Amino acid sequence: MRITGTFLDEISHDIPHQNWGRAEWDRDFAHMKSVGIDTVIMIRSGYRRFITYPSTYLQDSFGCYRPPVDLVELFLQLADKYNMKFYFGLYDSGKYWDSGNLQHEIDSNRYVIDEVWKQYGHYKSFGGWYLSMEISRRTKGATEAFRTLGQQCKDVSGGLPTLISPWIDGKKAVMAASSELTKQDAVSLREHEQEWGEIFQGIQGAVDAVAFQDGHIDYHELDDFFAVNKKIADQYGLQCWTNAESFDRDMPIKFLPIKFEKLRLKLEAARRAGYDKAITFEFSHFMSPQSAYPQAGHLFNRYKEYLEEL
Amino acid sequence: MRITGTFLDEISHDIPHQNWGRAEWDRDFAHMKSVGIDTVIMIRSGYRRFITYPSTYLQDSFGCYRPPVDLVELFLQLADKYNMKFYFGLYDSGKYWDSGNLQHEIDSNRYVIDEVWKQYGHYKSFGGWYLSMEISRRTKGATEAFRTLGQQCKDVSGGLPTLISPWIDGKKAVMAASSELTKQDAVSLREHEQEWGEIFQGIQGAVDAVAFQDGHIDYHELDDFFAVNKKIADQYGLQCWTNAESFDRDMPIKFLPIKFEKLRLKLEAARRAGYDKAITFEFSHFMSPQSAYPQAGHLFNRYKEYLEEL
Amino acid sequence: MRITGTFLDEISHDIPHQNWGRAEWDRDFAHMKSVGIDTVIMIRSGYRRFITYPSTYLQDSFGCYRPPVDLVELFLQLADKYNMKFYFGLYDSGKYWDSGNLQHEIDSNRYVIDEVWKQYGHYKSFGGWYLSMEISRRTKGATEAFRTLGQQCKDVSGGLPTLISPWIDGKKAVMAASSELTKQDAVSLREHEQEWGEIFQGIQGAVDAVAFQDGHIDYHELDDFFAVNKKIADQYGLQCWTNAESFDRDMPIKFLPIKFEKLRLKLEAARRAGYDKAITFEFSHFMSPQSAYPQAGHLFNRYKEYLEEL
Repeated sequence: MRITGTFLDEISHDIPHQNWGRAEWDRDFAHMKSVGIDTVIMIRSGYRRFITYPSTYLQDSFGCYRPPVDLVELFLQLADKYNMKFYFGLYDSGKYWDSGNLQHEIDSNRYVIDEVWKQYGHYKSFGGWYLSMEISRRTKGATEAFRTLGQQCKDVSGGLPTLISPWIDGKKAVMAASSELTKQDAVSLREHEQEWGEIFQGIQGAVDAVAFQDGHIDYHELDDFFAVNKKIADQYGLQCWTNAESFDRDMPIKFLPIKFEKLRLKLEAARRAGYDKAITFEFSHFMSPQSAYPQAGHLFNRYKEYLEEL
Repeated sequence: MRITGTFLDEISHDIPHQNWGRAEWDRDFAHMKSVGIDTVIMIRSGYRRFITYPSTYLQDSFGCYRPPVDLVELFLQLADKYNMKFYFGLYDSGKYWDSGNLQHEIDSNRYVIDEVWKQYGHYKSFGGWYLSMEISRRTKGATEAFRTLGQQCKDVSGGLPTLISPWIDGKKAVMAASSELTKQDAVSLREHEQEWGEIFQGIQGAVDAVAFQDGHIDYHELDDFFAVNKKIADQYGLQCWTNAESFDRDMPIKFLPIKFEKLRLKLEAARRAGYDKAITFEFSHFMSPQSAYPQAGHLFNRYKEYLEEL
Repeated sequence: MRITGTFLDEISHDIPHQNWGRAEWDRDFAHMKSVGIDTVIMIRSGYRRFITYPSTYLQDSFGCYRPPVDLVELFLQLADKYNMKFYFGLYDSGKYWDSGNLQHEIDSNRYVIDEVWKQYGHYKSFGGWYLSMEISRRTKGATEAFRTLGQQCKDVSGGLPTLISPWIDGKKAVMAASSELTKQDAVSLREHEQEWGEIFQGIQGAVDAVAFQDGHIDYHELDDFFAVNKKIADQYGLQCWTNAESFDRDMPIKFLPIKFEKLRLKLEAARRAGYDKAITFEFSHFMSPQSAYPQAGHLFNRYKEYLEEL
């Protein structure tokens, strides 16, 4: 299964920054294009006080820092140049993580969505919205919030598609800052199906595609969970994508590029499940020939050999 | 003291993968050869569901994944090409780590040893067996198991040598996934001598060489522990090798290449103790000019300067 | 604000070693010089048993290991060559960290200071002393010790300047080996001012410059803390430098190069506060084009672009 989309990891919670300028980003889009990537998804437009574009609203309302570069503009220009679709990731104020209340995210993003569409909506590559708040089954109460956010995006942009990328609450669902690699209280397949069925029912119409992160369950659990994901996505009319994580969750260094064999297992499972599209988190650190992690360049080569076999 | 052997870290528990293909491995064997390495030891042929060769037995019995490449064949071909000895590391089902019972490892490896010898025993570089279960003094009850495993290897292969590489239960014997670097309840020299004397007595005849990992004790403790290791190895007729770890156990990033000064201290201590051979864990990540960690290439250069002084 | 000084991270507690030889260090001094660095500060001359120069005293008294290279000599020769000032960092026996008693550090460094000045004081680049014991407000009792150490340095060397680089006890003041990134009981601005006022009063005359580490507080707290630092430094006649950390404290990998935007925020805050000089911890791992972390080379390029805007 070919990866045709990637996140752009600006702003990052937990992946060290590569400090690229325009030249490096331009080269990276060319690398992406060369292996068939047609969609880039900015992971979020801001996190707490760090933002990707000089938003007047966010600087005034949240004390955000004026960014040295307008990354939204840069990414849209490059997406135009390389004929890709760009998905804009919503702002994450951090208040939800602190308070458990998503109202802040709804309120602030109502302004962000308007501002961004006004400023950047004319780029031909502006192709969709990414609802950046990562949820799992424990955030079931958030269904309403996600429907509201997705609807806002679609309303302002003439119905451009919306995407979410939740995680499966599997045994590897631990915090990045934790020294642990696994936990005991993983979700069962039956609970997963029931709870996500309810969530999908609540967001249908406002969310077009769901790309579950594929790294929180064990490799031999992939087929079962992927089959359920596809079944309930179909049931509620969502596209079922896979977010094929290209970093390794099984290692003490959090995080370096994944072993190719593991990525292949996950992509093959997505193919068997009949998934609609594969995207990755993310190309530039973990699969790019110019990544600061040279293992990424080797992963790129192994992946290209795999594509030739397809 | 010159390093003449290295582990090949496939399959890894805790060292992120480099995603090398045949070309990179070939180059790496050439780098090894250039500094006098004549022995390569595959750390294990499989760990839980990940395996290094397409074993019918392991796929059928343990649900192992079919590997994308036959690494055993690749390594044997390269060892043939570069005129090295290849040691085959046994399979680790992971069940011992979970249950404390080594019977699983004995049973599964009885089949693995036969299968591997039938399939690969004709390579001229197939030179020995590595009993891959890492033990320390707390696994004393495992003596019997290790004798059985070693004997199986020797019986099937016309007496090819067998190797173990246990750790000293020193102050740095902490889990890789732990954020701690040291612990309080380190073994005393006297306990170490007594307990390992008993273990060596139990395995003599079935195990030919012991290469203690050299990274779990402090640098000023090296001479005392190494002297004891050599003394009891001699007493029970085992060859005494050192496993000179080329990664740094003292750093928050687990693990990057070791500071050359530390490696030198350890090699010099092994030389003073009259050790028979030095191997390292391991060349390709931590000492190779083409490692993803550029510090490894510098370590390679420092080590070559050291060889010139010998 | 231009960075005109850098630490040299030999001996390191927590940053993996790059294994550079003379050629790499020479090139690195050239890189430093190219962006205006005129001061290099050796972080410490030794830590426990590892030392930077073949000190007879430290080998005899503390069982220190004879170093493979005389780094003090190497750094002084390169500082001479590139016309920089070299600050010598005192020895850290580690006993203070174990016992809370600074008397060991005073006693051992009395000998180290004499030995070093006798052996290396003739280099024209020998320009100052760095009191390497990192303190914060909880080490207030140490004021007396630091006055003594600073005075010893000045007495022996005809009054060469002395430097300290304490940390602010902010929310990111957690141990490197901890998996946590922040803590709850951060110091308040008022406590910081009061306690550091007392410390500065105690060390004035013996310490010439203070370079607070800038990485333990949040970015929006920089202005407040920097203003206080400058005010109390002025009050007691100390030069107020900033130690602009070029590694990222917000990431699970401890530590990789900082995101340029963050470094810029910190440098701009120091500029606004009227600081006298900016140094960094440290150039060679985190900002150098030849660092083992390629992100550092990109940071170097972003920083050079920033200098062009100044």
